[in-house]
Amino acid sequence: MRSLKLTLAYDGTHYAGWQYQPDRATVQGALEEAIWQVTRERTRIRASSRTDAGVHALGQVAGWETECPLPEAVLQRALNARLPDDVVVLDVAPAPAGFHPTRDALRKRYRYVIDDGPLRNPFQRAYSWHFRTRLDAEAMGRAAQSLVGRHDFRSFETSGSPRPDSVRTVEEIVVRRESLPAERIVVEVQADGFLYNMVRAIVGTLVEVGRGARQPAWVASALAAQCRSAAGPTAPPQGLFLVRVDYPF
Amino acid sequence: MRSLKLTLAYDGTHYAGWQYQPDRATVQGALEEAIWQVTRERTRIRASSRTDAGVHALGQVAGWETECPLPEAVLQRALNARLPDDVVVLDVAPAPAGFHPTRDALRKRYRYVIDDGPLRNPFQRAYSWHFRTRLDAEAMGRAAQSLVGRHDFRSFETSGSPRPDSVRTVEEIVVRRESLPAERIVVEVQADGFLYNMVRAIVGTLVEVGRGARQPAWVASALAAQCRSAAGPTAPPQGLFLVRVDYPF
Repeated sequence: MRSLKLTLAYDGTHYAGWQYQPDRATVQGALEEAIWQVTRERTRIRASSRTDAGVHALGQVAGWETECPLPEAVLQRALNARLPDDVVVLDVAPAPAGFHPTRDALRKRYRYVIDDGPLRNPFQRAYSWHFRTRLDAEAMGRAAQSLVGRHDFRSFETSGSPRPDSVRTVEEIVVRRESLPAERIVVEVQADGFLYNMVRAIVGTLVEVGRGARQPAWVASALAAQCRSAAGPTAPPQGLFLVRVDYPF
Repeated sequence: MRSLKLTLAYDGTHYAGWQYQPDRATVQGALEEAIWQVTRERTRIRASSRTDAGVHALGQVAGWETECPLPEAVLQRALNARLPDDVVVLDVAPAPAGFHPTRDALRKRYRYVIDDGPLRNPFQRAYSWHFRTRLDAEAMGRAAQSLVGRHDFRSFETSGSPRPDSVRTVEEIVVRRESLPAERIVVEVQADGFLYNMVRAIVGTLVEVGRGARQPAWVASALAAQCRSAAGPTAPPQGLFLVRVDYPF
């Protein structure tokens, strides 16, 4: 078997998420169908992250084991010709034998976009969280720094999905205000791994600070509480983008 | 009757264009429905431009005659609360009695976006024309300058819709390559008026130059021919944005 690493971008708006479900449009389902059309192989594709419904990807990574001998560039073109318009294969590259895109990932980076303009932007509705109150991005950025480092992040994991190990290392959190292409706040989080809904819970928590309902120091106490209800609400999915996944090869 | 000027932005993707049609989603229909919900007035709204299916607006202008005494800011909020997410009222302002948004317009500005990257961008598919060949934006910009000025533009009017007068004054055409938010070419055309599909015909013609099929000087001869078949094809609708309409008040 030949092991390949696929890098994908997709607009998650019209998908019930990454993970295959019978009778629903999923990114995994669309990719496996395109692979079948190209190679006549029925296969199960694994991704670095099972993005939820409405969540987007700029650089999702999937692992593909195939018998197909076609060169990588030919496979890329053939898949792109058969995939729907809202999914694109950015790269096809050889991967080490046994490549596992979740287990082998060194780190991932997510972006979350908040549109805090007074009027909704019709072009950003599927790509941001429209929050009507102007937020204090500087306070959010200060509060976020207490999350950087190696911590138990169970306060930021959607309950009902406990993992045996909820310790992760957040390497960087950046909060910045942008004015182009539209007035917005961008939050980027990079970590060696993420719990379920962790970025959306972090963003929902930082927004409590940004709108002035909480002081920046509250975020550190929410983290220390190790309890989901100590932190803020989960931000909606459509503002979230999986930016990048890094591997040791 | 009170005369108002509405400025609107909308994502045209899910509409059969501006103009009202029974049993189809149109921007005019959505706006008239929102007005009815707010004022219980059944009204016909006129716009500066009847944008086609898939065409977007950043600053469409509509005229609204109403008996409703509510302040402009209240009307704006009430309409936005009832409009679908992909349409937003940016401004409500008093207009002179008898305001007619088409007839009274001094000039309009349109933008057309071409994505000429080798891979389609899943996030730009509804907001640009994906052209797989890298285009020469500099040659397109040079060729475009022959269209600036007062000319008979019937070579750039979709046939079957002749107007008695096809002379218009193009005040400016800008062709620029941008790299953010994505690699793309932006064409902006400003004129005192436009014929049907004029911007899309101009863009389709400039792309013939950009891909090297024609010399820049060919655009001047296509204009001089005063015949639609002398110019290039009509670019698809989803790259087109109505940017702005100017009035003397």
